[in-house]
Amino acid sequence: MINREETKMKSIDVRSDTVTHPTKRMYEAMFNAQIGDDVYYEDDTVNKLEKMAAELVGMEAALFVPTGTMGNQILVMAHCQRGQEIIIGIDHHVAEDEVAGCAVLAGVQTRTLPTKDGYMDLQDIENSIRKDIYDWIPETGLICLENSMQGRALSLEYMAKVRELGNKYKIPVHLDGARMFNACTALKCSPREMGQYVDSLNFCLSKGLCAPIGSMICGSKKLIQKARRLRKLLGGGMRQVGIIAAAGIIAIQEMIPQLEDDHRIARILAEELSLIPEVDVKFEALSTNMVFWQFRDQKMRNLVNFQQCLAKKNIKINLPWEPKYWFRFVIHHYIREEQVQQIVDAIKSYIAQSEDRIQASL
Amino acid sequence: MINREETKMKSIDVRSDTVTHPTKRMYEAMFNAQIGDDVYYEDDTVNKLEKMAAELVGMEAALFVPTGTMGNQILVMAHCQRGQEIIIGIDHHVAEDEVAGCAVLAGVQTRTLPTKDGYMDLQDIENSIRKDIYDWIPETGLICLENSMQGRALSLEYMAKVRELGNKYKIPVHLDGARMFNACTALKCSPREMGQYVDSLNFCLSKGLCAPIGSMICGSKKLIQKARRLRKLLGGGMRQVGIIAAAGIIAIQEMIPQLEDDHRIARILAEELSLIPEVDVKFEALSTNMVFWQFRDQKMRNLVNFQQCLAKKNIKINLPWEPKYWFRFVIHHYIREEQVQQIVDAIKSYIAQSEDRIQASL
Amino acid sequence: MINREETKMKSIDVRSDTVTHPTKRMYEAMFNAQIGDDVYYEDDTVNKLEKMAAELVGMEAALFVPTGTMGNQILVMAHCQRGQEIIIGIDHHVAEDEVAGCAVLAGVQTRTLPTKDGYMDLQDIENSIRKDIYDWIPETGLICLENSMQGRALSLEYMAKVRELGNKYKIPVHLDGARMFNACTALKCSPREMGQYVDSLNFCLSKGLCAPIGSMICGSKKLIQKARRLRKLLGGGMRQVGIIAAAGIIAIQEMIPQLEDDHRIARILAEELSLIPEVDVKFEALSTNMVFWQFRDQKMRNLVNFQQCLAKKNIKINLPWEPKYWFRFVIHHYIREEQVQQIVDAIKSYIAQSEDRIQASL
Amino acid sequence: MINREETKMKSIDVRSDTVTHPTKRMYEAMFNAQIGDDVYYEDDTVNKLEKMAAELVGMEAALFVPTGTMGNQILVMAHCQRGQEIIIGIDHHVAEDEVAGCAVLAGVQTRTLPTKDGYMDLQDIENSIRKDIYDWIPETGLICLENSMQGRALSLEYMAKVRELGNKYKIPVHLDGARMFNACTALKCSPREMGQYVDSLNFCLSKGLCAPIGSMICGSKKLIQKARRLRKLLGGGMRQVGIIAAAGIIAIQEMIPQLEDDHRIARILAEELSLIPEVDVKFEALSTNMVFWQFRDQKMRNLVNFQQCLAKKNIKINLPWEPKYWFRFVIHHYIREEQVQQIVDAIKSYIAQSEDRIQASL
Repeated sequence: MINREETKMKSIDVRSDTVTHPTKRMYEAMFNAQIGDDVYYEDDTVNKLEKMAAELVGMEAALFVPTGTMGNQILVMAHCQRGQEIIIGIDHHVAEDEVAGCAVLAGVQTRTLPTKDGYMDLQDIENSIRKDIYDWIPETGLICLENSMQGRALSLEYMAKVRELGNKYKIPVHLDGARMFNACTALKCSPREMGQYVDSLNFCLSKGLCAPIGSMICGSKKLIQKARRLRKLLGGGMRQVGIIAAAGIIAIQEMIPQLEDDHRIARILAEELSLIPEVDVKFEALSTNMVFWQFRDQKMRNLVNFQQCLAKKNIKINLPWEPKYWFRFVIHHYIREEQVQQIVDAIKSYIAQSEDRIQASL
Repeated sequence: MINREETKMKSIDVRSDTVTHPTKRMYEAMFNAQIGDDVYYEDDTVNKLEKMAAELVGMEAALFVPTGTMGNQILVMAHCQRGQEIIIGIDHHVAEDEVAGCAVLAGVQTRTLPTKDGYMDLQDIENSIRKDIYDWIPETGLICLENSMQGRALSLEYMAKVRELGNKYKIPVHLDGARMFNACTALKCSPREMGQYVDSLNFCLSKGLCAPIGSMICGSKKLIQKARRLRKLLGGGMRQVGIIAAAGIIAIQEMIPQLEDDHRIARILAEELSLIPEVDVKFEALSTNMVFWQFRDQKMRNLVNFQQCLAKKNIKINLPWEPKYWFRFVIHHYIREEQVQQIVDAIKSYIAQSEDRIQASL
Repeated sequence: MINREETKMKSIDVRSDTVTHPTKRMYEAMFNAQIGDDVYYEDDTVNKLEKMAAELVGMEAALFVPTGTMGNQILVMAHCQRGQEIIIGIDHHVAEDEVAGCAVLAGVQTRTLPTKDGYMDLQDIENSIRKDIYDWIPETGLICLENSMQGRALSLEYMAKVRELGNKYKIPVHLDGARMFNACTALKCSPREMGQYVDSLNFCLSKGLCAPIGSMICGSKKLIQKARRLRKLLGGGMRQVGIIAAAGIIAIQEMIPQLEDDHRIARILAEELSLIPEVDVKFEALSTNMVFWQFRDQKMRNLVNFQQCLAKKNIKINLPWEPKYWFRFVIHHYIREEQVQQIVDAIKSYIAQSEDRIQASL
Repeated sequence: MINREETKMKSIDVRSDTVTHPTKRMYEAMFNAQIGDDVYYEDDTVNKLEKMAAELVGMEAALFVPTGTMGNQILVMAHCQRGQEIIIGIDHHVAEDEVAGCAVLAGVQTRTLPTKDGYMDLQDIENSIRKDIYDWIPETGLICLENSMQGRALSLEYMAKVRELGNKYKIPVHLDGARMFNACTALKCSPREMGQYVDSLNFCLSKGLCAPIGSMICGSKKLIQKARRLRKLLGGGMRQVGIIAAAGIIAIQEMIPQLEDDHRIARILAEELSLIPEVDVKFEALSTNMVFWQFRDQKMRNLVNFQQCLAKKNIKINLPWEPKYWFRFVIHHYIREEQVQQIVDAIKSYIAQSEDRIQASL
């Protein structure tokens, strides 16, 4: 196993786990990978990775895709006809962060449902499934889940119930599992246990698993065959993919067990932050590698100032999205335990300055 | 003005106001209409109707379209680029009843918001407008309202506030005003007063206004010029349209004032129904020509039986959509006041039968 | 049968047969038509027309649509999946005059082939059908024919051979038969004889048949069922359609036999024109109701002048499309035989003026 | 410069230049590359490559994309609105090999023109540009060229004339320059000389240049900014791209000059083949790294047999696409001069066997 102490980045970057670099073991694997033209199915490393991914989640087949976005969109296209509708949480990645791809690429309408703590209400899902198909009603083509969902691991019980709804109405269920191994780690379940509740899924080799590029999509043989053609349509049919697939193999083999340590450090950060009186930590969203928190006092919410203040101390953060004031700090392989204290100290120092300024302005 | 007493249909049809026939005055107008090839802009009757419609709602230009669905979809396409997103109530017609057209035709994603009493929450709308446009975020292209909305007239105050949001973020606002004159009648405002709050709107000449075919879309000259080309794309550029446009002129001139009478009869029906102990009337949704009601007792909800029972008495109804048990009875020009009693009697008679049956089964 | 001598229009309009008005018999039918809400399948007149149309062309089912463009696009969508390809003549209506609908609405690529005298080369069609379907090759989803094709009636032998190709490669064949009865009249065959060679077709009730609005699409029951839903998607699902469908019934019953007379008058016009030394008539394109001709001398091709000169004599013409100088004069029910001479005289008068002007400029 | 003699592959693979592996220098560069999260614009190696690519072809900006297909499709989307039309050769990659992407992704219609020796006829292009934009005519949005085009280098004079047409009608011109450096090498011009004639282009780092993955798209700053967002939409916005971009830098710096040698070996192969009496070489298509040839005698065209026969001698070939019998043999960095003789000998040996068999069957 890789020793986290050896990993280094120039800055303490808690913006996202997408900033992770390949590990040394990945570099070695990439350098030694057997490669070939994957459009001709001749890249042995890709073939090995695809087999490994399918087995990992208990599905028949898998396909390498350059990004999670492409993976999700391919599967929406593979499951649905144009003119169908998908049921999806209003803040899920497929609806929020994929440039309206469902509409543009698949001609598929999003029926976005509100979420609470990452969950769509089960009754709401059932009500949203179209039963009487008149000529003017779009058919429901897919239910989309996401797990982990903004730091939260949704329970297997919930997924099982969505699966039941899917079965009842013969609607396939897709999992955007970009960070599904974080969810599995939090739930202490295997990827197969989670995979059993969905017809297809997407997981990322980058993010917490540290591969530089790539996601895997998994499903039945028939679905993945369709997906292969759709990947070509979207321009994702690359050539000597083995070079990056090699990193993906290491990601699966060596990095999934490391996620537990990311979660442990995230919890330490959350607890340290919660000791600061001016800070409010969203503990109910803390089950994986993300810590959500805010300043209690609106007057401290000069966010750009705060970002610059931390940047001076070599800490990179993202600003929260309006209209919320919740920061998201993401822990990954390149954040070491001792760096938590640096982050906390930097926040305390900003608070001290802010209080002086607020005091002065009274 | 047309005397309602003269109108006749074979049955008492409360399924929808879409079942209305042209009036005698419409037939006369159709028969005497100047016509020409509207693709060459040479149909004088259409030209007159389009001018009249634009003036009615206080906009620069208008265009005849064969259906309200086409009208809405053309305007979504005219306002939005592919890959944008519209904000819309989850149960609005554009999202519910137009076969996912926004996605298929416009490549536009629907961000569907929950509604309460027909209203989307204003804060929810504002939160849903995309402010920081990263590469992965769909831009908000349009806010869609509907008024009247399932029988309710949304207030002008609400529309004004949505208009303000649109102005603040430079997002156009569209009104699906299929039944906007019902709303105006209920609100005692002119169509211009309502029209001032939106950048485009669609209203139907059929439904309560009794024309056989057609809707009008209204907006700026530039928008309607784009719309004309999009109408051709969707296959709505017809030829000697004056024949049906002539009925549209009568619809606007003579039928809008008649809607008040529809509403009056709807209120009589609602009140009569509310006197039946087994029946629950949704008075809060009663502001136009639709009466929503249900059987209090689940045991009476053998809906197919009920429909057949009424059919025998020459009353046509639609079944409610799952999972709700609310019937929608729609009053229009071809329902006369004295027929209300026939409807109420038929329901009472079904209840009596049901109670016997329920009794027997105990 | 209707007496052509009774028909009158304000001008001699040879721009297109789309300018035709309904006949008196059509007006009578429209005003006596049984109507109902066609979305509920309750318009008896539409139902009758649809049955009549299907029988006429020897197919299982038919559907009324507001325009030929919508009819063609619905059938492209009904036959093809997104990402497929259709084989079509580069100057066919579906590729030329439908605003790129195949791409926008159906997500279907046009493989446009050159045509000669209206015909795509059979070998070219066969070569264009995709045989080896690699992941990157679009599948062929449809072969599109048009007959009559810009005035020409394509032979049944040709259609039979295209049918054979379709059968050989299991590709459906669609006929844009907007003016198929003109073609049938020229070929002296029945619509059924032509219909047998295709899986679906579209024909117009307007144009030469004089109905004000509407086209019929015909095919198998299954196809037309899909088409009905697609019609709703495109916004073509109208309500009391019987009013205009009634004209369509007369169009089929009474107007098809009249086309022969249009063709006869077109031939007279062509022959009269060919007697003018300065004029060149494209006799090889003369088999239906369209006469193509040009000025031999480039100096006479001041087209706008010519158009104005004829307009003064109450004759309406369209300018030719660049880069060709071929005028298209279209004969229809509202052009009487004696008006041919007025047209010819007007052209002679323009030539005389032009020659003076050309002479003067030397 | 890299010594070709050092390169080795297990087999003599003339199927395509897409089978090339990274060179040693590329491996070194990949493993020493500075990387970062390219979605945040923080990958220095990508940034360097993009700057280098833009300068190479004389344009303002460039963007890394995972495949040439995605590059082309992004640029079609960036140039065109839905409902527009592109003019393109019927056998060009964008129309033939990209799964109808123009229609599915961009809603753009392909007006496919016949080609002769890789060229669309200039008059044909001009005729195909839409001048009078009626409501029903799709606008021309783009002219697409490809160079090299199936082994041929199209002349700069031709490109200049297409550029003039584009200027005359204000239509942008795009170059699918997947193998543009092969074309430049054959024409003895710089990439800038070619780039000046187009508004955007796409070139591949893989293929003859041997990088494992990736293409560059180039154009104005504004266009590339739009392209960046469209790349995200298609799922091409990857993370630590520097690893593969590093190979791309070497591809540009070191491999372009090597192409001349590929062309020299292709010529040797063509000449050797032409000495075989049973073989016909298409010398007119020989200007880059592709050799097209066929068996003169139809009886020898048992293609699967031939493919197997060569496979036994460790030579990999693709079968020709129906209905043509022209083989395409592609020379690249991993084919050495002495291997030409092995290929020629293998073909001779097949011919000898075939002749025996043909003889025997008489």
